[in-house]
Amino acid sequence: MPDFSKLLILGPGLLGGSLGLAAKERRLAGHVSLWGRREQPLQEALSLGAADTIHTNLREAASNADIVVFATPTRTFPQLAQELVGNLPKAATVTDVGSIKAAVCHEMEKFFPGCFIGAHPMAGAEKSGISYARADLFTNAACIITPLETTLPKAIDSACTLWTGLGCRIHRMPALEHDQAVARLSHLPHLIAAALVNSALAEIPEAWMEIVGPGFRDTTRVASGPPSMWAEILIDNRAAVASALAGFLCKLEKISAALRADDTGPIKKLLTSAKDLRDIIIKKNFSP
Amino acid sequence: MPDFSKLLILGPGLLGGSLGLAAKERRLAGHVSLWGRREQPLQEALSLGAADTIHTNLREAASNADIVVFATPTRTFPQLAQELVGNLPKAATVTDVGSIKAAVCHEMEKFFPGCFIGAHPMAGAEKSGISYARADLFTNAACIITPLETTLPKAIDSACTLWTGLGCRIHRMPALEHDQAVARLSHLPHLIAAALVNSALAEIPEAWMEIVGPGFRDTTRVASGPPSMWAEILIDNRAAVASALAGFLCKLEKISAALRADDTGPIKKLLTSAKDLRDIIIKKNFSP
Repeated sequence: MPDFSKLLILGPGLLGGSLGLAAKERRLAGHVSLWGRREQPLQEALSLGAADTIHTNLREAASNADIVVFATPTRTFPQLAQELVGNLPKAATVTDVGSIKAAVCHEMEKFFPGCFIGAHPMAGAEKSGISYARADLFTNAACIITPLETTLPKAIDSACTLWTGLGCRIHRMPALEHDQAVARLSHLPHLIAAALVNSALAEIPEAWMEIVGPGFRDTTRVASGPPSMWAEILIDNRAAVASALAGFLCKLEKISAALRADDTGPIKKLLTSAKDLRDIIIKKNFSP
Repeated sequence: MPDFSKLLILGPGLLGGSLGLAAKERRLAGHVSLWGRREQPLQEALSLGAADTIHTNLREAASNADIVVFATPTRTFPQLAQELVGNLPKAATVTDVGSIKAAVCHEMEKFFPGCFIGAHPMAGAEKSGISYARADLFTNAACIITPLETTLPKAIDSACTLWTGLGCRIHRMPALEHDQAVARLSHLPHLIAAALVNSALAEIPEAWMEIVGPGFRDTTRVASGPPSMWAEILIDNRAAVASALAGFLCKLEKISAALRADDTGPIKKLLTSAKDLRDIIIKKNFSP
């Protein structure tokens, strides 16, 4: 028996589409509705099997939903919430997939008191759009949930049921702590990958463009992600990102000094400690 | 008919082992010999099919070889070259897989006048050792060759035959230019990945260790490579690496200022230009 009678997903992108595919495959809901502004991605989602019904009318999509997932850019949340709020059953749980949480949770709490619970599945890809949606995108991914003090236990339970059902490992954390954690673990790497592409490839001879290996490819993979979405994320979490970046710059300055001084010690220490730490973290997060 | 009657590979690691597997699979040589110091990896290479014969005695391994590939760390080259030089047929071509070229090529030219030709296949993995060897490691990889003015055309031809035969795209470049190019495209990304691991994970709460996603995993993949080998590479190419790092730091300082000023413009410009540049370079290097 499905956990939800009706799941509504807002946004037929990579995350929304993958969520629909996974929910359908895992039979998490009796009915999966997908809402979006444009017909074309909705039709594609439907043909991929990511939803039972597709909608451009939000009010119509909302009726009878018992759980709603916002999978649109976070800056669109208030307007969508405004449209949704009168048309959603009172007891419905509302969650999301956004990359920032503190501001979002406090804003959404106003629209859905006690019923909104922030969530951030640590899953994604540099390719955006419904065409890249995959039913296994969330399998074994960490999903951080960030209930406020006012969030009702029922909403927390529903969100846990949903994200666990999608294959995620749930981690509960205050919203502000989430924003600091992902500033270091996701937003900083993104910024650095983009800066690395621009710096390494700045004004290089044409011939150098053809000798790139898998190291460069993987180190910069995320830099092929959607620029507008990521600019919003970085700016909306700017205090925590700036602080993470300051720590990183400080580390790099020391390495730069060691290189210029032909001092192998700090370089070897850096590489050894990086390998040790990374090997631990990869095992913790990606072991089958 | 094979291109070489006897290929000798020095070093049964990831690169040497993959080279042996590829040479055998593609029938590039009548006979593939593999030399190493320790029995165990040699035995493993033999059982994987990476060589016809294995040797711990370099003089014995060298007899009748018409092409030799150094696949050991570059700092071991002079000592191995010294042992090899009197025992190798005069006409044999000598090449390598090292990550730095200018110093290596000039040093090796002394041992094998006209017969050494530096090569750097842009292929590898964060896992080292013969166990991770793969016959397709070099398939479609760029291989930079760096002949000196004194290098004989026959040596250049032999190296091109070998690396093309292994599936590589050959790019010819002066050794010094190679070192500057890879400082930006390979050594800088490695240093940055290691610094990112150390900075992002420095003194973090235990809970944060379990919420790492695929972005962090890929951005830092190379940081799990062998620390000693990479410390040598970075130090041996320190002038070019320090210069590449200075350019990167300058770029990051500007981004840091934009973040602190809540200025979306430069952030969006950085991300857009990074995506455009990376999408082009990935197409150039990794399209089937």
